Amino acid sequence: MQDTHISLAHGNGGRLMRELIDEIFAHHLANPALDVHADAVRLTMDSAELMFTTDGFTVDPLEFPGGDIGSLAVHGTCNDLAVAGATARYLSLNVFVEEGMEIQQLDRIVCSLAKASREIGVQVVAGDTKVVRRGEGGGLYLATTGIGSRDHDRELSMNRIQAGDAVLVSGPLGDHGIAVMLAREQFGLQGKLLSDAACVLPLTRGLLNFSGLRFMRDPTRGGLAAVTHEMIRATGLSVRLQQAAIPVREEVQSVCEMLGYDPFYLASEGRVIAVIERGQADAALAAWQALPQGRSAAIIGSLEEEGLQRVVLETALGGERFLEELEDDPLPRIC
Amino acid sequence: MQDTHISLAHGNGGRLMRELIDEIFAHHLANPALDVHADAVRLTMDSAELMFTTDGFTVDPLEFPGGDIGSLAVHGTCNDLAVAGATARYLSLNVFVEEGMEIQQLDRIVCSLAKASREIGVQVVAGDTKVVRRGEGGGLYLATTGIGSRDHDRELSMNRIQAGDAVLVSGPLGDHGIAVMLAREQFGLQGKLLSDAACVLPLTRGLLNFSGLRFMRDPTRGGLAAVTHEMIRATGLSVRLQQAAIPVREEVQSVCEMLGYDPFYLASEGRVIAVIERGQADAALAAWQALPQGRSAAIIGSLEEEGLQRVVLETALGGERFLEELEDDPLPRIC
Repeated sequence: MQDTHISLAHGNGGRLMRELIDEIFAHHLANPALDVHADAVRLTMDSAELMFTTDGFTVDPLEFPGGDIGSLAVHGTCNDLAVAGATARYLSLNVFVEEGMEIQQLDRIVCSLAKASREIGVQVVAGDTKVVRRGEGGGLYLATTGIGSRDHDRELSMNRIQAGDAVLVSGPLGDHGIAVMLAREQFGLQGKLLSDAACVLPLTRGLLNFSGLRFMRDPTRGGLAAVTHEMIRATGLSVRLQQAAIPVREEVQSVCEMLGYDPFYLASEGRVIAVIERGQADAALAAWQALPQGRSAAIIGSLEEEGLQRVVLETALGGERFLEELEDDPLPRIC
Repeated sequence: MQDTHISLAHGNGGRLMRELIDEIFAHHLANPALDVHADAVRLTMDSAELMFTTDGFTVDPLEFPGGDIGSLAVHGTCNDLAVAGATARYLSLNVFVEEGMEIQQLDRIVCSLAKASREIGVQVVAGDTKVVRRGEGGGLYLATTGIGSRDHDRELSMNRIQAGDAVLVSGPLGDHGIAVMLAREQFGLQGKLLSDAACVLPLTRGLLNFSGLRFMRDPTRGGLAAVTHEMIRATGLSVRLQQAAIPVREEVQSVCEMLGYDPFYLASEGRVIAVIERGQADAALAAWQALPQGRSAAIIGSLEEEGLQRVVLETALGGERFLEELEDDPLPRIC
């Protein structure tokens, strides 16, 4: 390919588009099931039952400490399957690229996406690329849809949560949100913090054998606050969190204080929040802490029948405050 | 919902985003398999073998005579499954919406998408929405991924094409491309032409019982030229087309002459090009012409072993010209 930047002709169905697909997408993503010349591919699953999920990615900047939009798309979609008790098998990839994007950067990102897929063992088998005019896109947006096979017969759902259940988190919260924000030039800050973006499958599989496991979720957009608010809406219960127990890195905490953010609203991209029967919580915690991804795991709170239907944060000094649902504090393009 | 326009808070994982999902997406798309609160949904297929495809949509304007980006996304993705010999069963939907979009228009588009899905009998079962800042999106982009079940055991592939095979088209070419272009204000033209965007499943099913059926494709981006060029690259053969036999509406032809376009490069969104053994071509044509969608179907050419590996257009006056692969004539955001 001779061009250095994406032009509209890379999206018109002609020669340049074919070269872009062959030399970047097919080149990096090659696998037995991928056929870039077919309208649809034939896939074989272990059973006639499958799990299905989809995600869009608009992160800005496209490359950030600890990841990029390509690896993030793979991790994000596979993680949605993992927390549902499934292993990702196949992905589709939609690319919206803006005229003028540097082809070398696109190549790096697709290469990273392919590497993340190989590491997880998921195959990108279908794709489509659209080029939009300069000024009509944020450089690059991706959409990935995943098909997974179920690892377990147990139903995992917020509807299974009961009063008294414990809430666990697998590691420090908000690394991804702060790493991406610090990578934006407008803040004039630089940190050593890496995004936590990673595959959570070892963590989710580590809990699937616990009969008391009710529900798991990765706290991405909206963070811990969004997950816990969804829990109270689904159950009518309250969530009580012990603030001192919630793992947050010192660097995340100090950037939050500087910029006026609350770490409990920040996105993580490699963490799991799990709800489990109280009697099995310590064993589940030990199972997580035995994994490299779960060394900082913690029991951070519980579900309570107290009529309030609020998320209550018990502070270190013995006080209490409500963790409200996110209103109008937007962090656009964080994932 | 009180807002009239999309704001960044509609994408932040908090209350406004939840309301947007509940009041627009869940409201219109409701079906038994859709769970807007789950990370992944469980689907059951007829067999452990499935067909999988994906498409992105960036059409501008979002609403055009004969369709809109919502119905187009459903038709486009289901058509990719149909030409592969499969019936769409489940769809995922990714939405990239730009800050400032009118919520009423989004509602109309999602309503239209839901209507198209119901008519085809496909369920939207997974989705995600991202809001990008004003100036970073073209109003609305969609990505849809489809899972289908195979209707037939026969393999359909360009690799099965043989010299002597006939090329059929199911109806007039280029209606979608011209209808969308005329809907753009910059041309100052207005026509009565409707996009041909529609589900092609009756057409593809109409041919599946022909043992000599080799391959089908819907001529979207890049039009007839892109499909025939892919054929000659895959087979090493030439394609000979009889220009007078190729159905093109008078209005499409005259707009093309006015604006300097060639109708054979224009996108259709409800047509099928099929390659079939010569001996079965007349019967296949009759099968299509008996359908309301195929009344203007025609045999337009054949595959020939003549060493050239070109797409040759035989003109009405007995001349010949090559239909070249699309180079640098971009028609951005046509689908």
